[in-house]
Amino acid sequence: MTTEDTNGNPHAHRRSKLAARLGTRPALIASGSARPRNYTANTYPFRASSHFLYLFGLAAERDAFAFYDGATWALYLPPRDPDDALWEGPRPSFAAIAESTGCAVHGVPELDRALHGRDVATLPAPDLETCEAQGRWLGRDVRPRRFSAADEALADAIISLRLQHDDAAIAELRLAAAATDAAHRAGMRATRPGLRESSVRAAMEAEILARDLTVAYGSIVTTHGEVLHNEQHHRPLGSSDMILADVGAESPGGWAGDVTRAWPVAGRFSTAQRELYEVVLAAQRRAIEAVRPGVRYRDVHLLAGRALAAGLVDLGLLRGDPAELHADGVVASFFPHGVGHLLGLDVHDMEDLGDRAGYAPGRTRDPAPGMRYLRLDRDLAPGMALTIEPGIYFIPAILEDPALDARTGGRVDRARAAAFVAAGARGIRIEDDLLVTPDGHEVLTAAVPKTVAAVEAAMQS
Amino acid sequence: MTTEDTNGNPHAHRRSKLAARLGTRPALIASGSARPRNYTANTYPFRASSHFLYLFGLAAERDAFAFYDGATWALYLPPRDPDDALWEGPRPSFAAIAESTGCAVHGVPELDRALHGRDVATLPAPDLETCEAQGRWLGRDVRPRRFSAADEALADAIISLRLQHDDAAIAELRLAAAATDAAHRAGMRATRPGLRESSVRAAMEAEILARDLTVAYGSIVTTHGEVLHNEQHHRPLGSSDMILADVGAESPGGWAGDVTRAWPVAGRFSTAQRELYEVVLAAQRRAIEAVRPGVRYRDVHLLAGRALAAGLVDLGLLRGDPAELHADGVVASFFPHGVGHLLGLDVHDMEDLGDRAGYAPGRTRDPAPGMRYLRLDRDLAPGMALTIEPGIYFIPAILEDPALDARTGGRVDRARAAAFVAAGARGIRIEDDLLVTPDGHEVLTAAVPKTVAAVEAAMQS
Repeated sequence: MTTEDTNGNPHAHRRSKLAARLGTRPALIASGSARPRNYTANTYPFRASSHFLYLFGLAAERDAFAFYDGATWALYLPPRDPDDALWEGPRPSFAAIAESTGCAVHGVPELDRALHGRDVATLPAPDLETCEAQGRWLGRDVRPRRFSAADEALADAIISLRLQHDDAAIAELRLAAAATDAAHRAGMRATRPGLRESSVRAAMEAEILARDLTVAYGSIVTTHGEVLHNEQHHRPLGSSDMILADVGAESPGGWAGDVTRAWPVAGRFSTAQRELYEVVLAAQRRAIEAVRPGVRYRDVHLLAGRALAAGLVDLGLLRGDPAELHADGVVASFFPHGVGHLLGLDVHDMEDLGDRAGYAPGRTRDPAPGMRYLRLDRDLAPGMALTIEPGIYFIPAILEDPALDARTGGRVDRARAAAFVAAGARGIRIEDDLLVTPDGHEVLTAAVPKTVAAVEAAMQS
Repeated sequence: MTTEDTNGNPHAHRRSKLAARLGTRPALIASGSARPRNYTANTYPFRASSHFLYLFGLAAERDAFAFYDGATWALYLPPRDPDDALWEGPRPSFAAIAESTGCAVHGVPELDRALHGRDVATLPAPDLETCEAQGRWLGRDVRPRRFSAADEALADAIISLRLQHDDAAIAELRLAAAATDAAHRAGMRATRPGLRESSVRAAMEAEILARDLTVAYGSIVTTHGEVLHNEQHHRPLGSSDMILADVGAESPGGWAGDVTRAWPVAGRFSTAQRELYEVVLAAQRRAIEAVRPGVRYRDVHLLAGRALAAGLVDLGLLRGDPAELHADGVVASFFPHGVGHLLGLDVHDMEDLGDRAGYAPGRTRDPAPGMRYLRLDRDLAPGMALTIEPGIYFIPAILEDPALDARTGGRVDRARAAAFVAAGARGIRIEDDLLVTPDGHEVLTAAVPKTVAAVEAAMQS
């Protein structure tokens, strides 16, 4: 949102802002290691750590370190091996990287001299290999999700920057949204009874791969959307099923898109499918309308929950007063997760820093049903990106639990729930990516078909 | 190749064979952990370690251990969390897994009692997280690619089994080959000038994803095949370019396919493209013909190299006697890698065990150019699966090296090489998967179009 960021090098601007927050306190940021699939040399495509990407944008620099010595930033990269050209092609020279970044570039072994005897903050990488390297350089134990006091101060400084996206970041989020839109349209077009879930997933991911991008997270493409992180794709598509697809592209610079849609395999929503879908859509709209600077995200979550409560009462699934049903946690049996999360270089942005990023200082997770999975509880501010993703799920373990009646005071109509399950409406979630603007918000993923009419049209196209 | 393996449970049969080799020596096999993309909870799809898959076939059991106590096998699995059903769907119960495997099943914490005070062999997992868990249970340092004497004995016992595939394994290799065939055909069909490499890769991987399978390794789909592990896909397809695609599917049980083809973007081979392609194809055929029990794989590699030498002389790229050119290492400038490797649950099978699997006892890598990257040097035996993949590459760093003339005695015609590069024939490799049979061999990937006529026909289909 700060227009100066697009003038010149956004990474240099971010480094200078972070330096201003750190003052004379030194910091070491690791780019991370390639992850093995099954043996060391067979790796997943390398993706630099989000903090390193944020500050340098050097997506291909594995096993590299950025060091801020309390005054300036320098890069420490693995020495170039002559065999690189044979196996992986020529890599940019240290001189070329020094030129493009404006930073001094050294070989990793020279870190020793730079760090010698200093108390240096770092952010533990998610993989132990990199943590071990960090620990070796810093002479202390570095572990994922464990932070020294200095590390926490560094984390807070980075969070204060990454929470509110600059123009370069927003441009990347738009690229991710555009590829995510194409993927969902391809999935809708590819859906036909008799295929398997995997065919729809393939059509969606192929759109992303064809753009030379990758998915931002493991795709969920399932007829059993009631399993929240369902990564199975083997089931055949029955003509009365609905597909839930939670698929997002990662932009060229590593920024995430994160969209969920649900659509009928038959190409037309049945009455029951449409009824449930419209309840979720109304709740999502209610939540989206509320997104603006100064609003507490927890309240957006509660708005969505109350709107779902009202809709479930209208459908005869719940009996009683919507506000009471929500306050009593009955709605949480159908909407157990949070209404969304921060979005940025990580699909759950900065989740490597725990709730430090998602929760404002002094706020902590509420263990109540329906609240404990809420990943974001900050007052919204311009430049924040987040998702809004209410859902309704008929979860067998909950609906078949003999204690359900006692727990809900008999306010759940199990037979009505079973009818929706039979209609293929087992789990519906609708998710968009939003940018908080000075005046309210912008839906970054507004192009992805969402109304019943738009989804049906996209399936026919 | 042993027919008894398909009667009943092949995994039980493998466990019993391994137990017979281990006798009373206990062993611990880890299934491994899910690998983080960028933060801990955002993981790549989980794939159990190959050794664990080989013995139990429980592809989805992460953070699990199999323990052989010197008499029987038992499983130690993470305790089921009630929230699993919500987030990941119901998982098979311990009782169900005990029933399907015929092994006792316990919670991981019970490992402590089982292991107490015993000297237990293990195979270090490729990720440090799992190695740490192994080390904690065993009370010693466990690190990737480091083996105690007991570990080495366990490795040798497993190698002796996994080297020669049973019928269940061969059936899986056939499934991998079939999906790999479909992927290559899709890539040939999808190729058109003006698209990008990424579009061809997307078409190929979509065939694999649609079958609910995954790739066995990072796909190479490039117009710059001279970069051996080129994982970039951003380049546009020029009408005089050739694509090199090294793409393989992993079967449902985790077994690898590994096929390389090269084809002209224009749909028809130009004269220069065809000339070079036919040289590689002739060398591949020569090597394939030699594959039979008792043959030393190093000799197959040398046959391919000599055939390439003769072909390069015929094309005027090299001057002199083919046998001398090969013996002097001149051919290694164009064919620097080995002619193939073991194939199985890993695309370079058992490479986590170093050269212990690929090299027969007493044999070690030859550091000479053209030999040092040879990953396999065993006498072939029925049931072994391997690749045959000669190639010719015009590598700028080699061709532009001022020392080339001195090093090769002026026997390389740089201008002729430059002409092939200009014709888009920068790197051509042809790779198939073979099974060694009692009588010779079977090409598992024989269906993938390979002759000039077959490739051109597949591109038009």
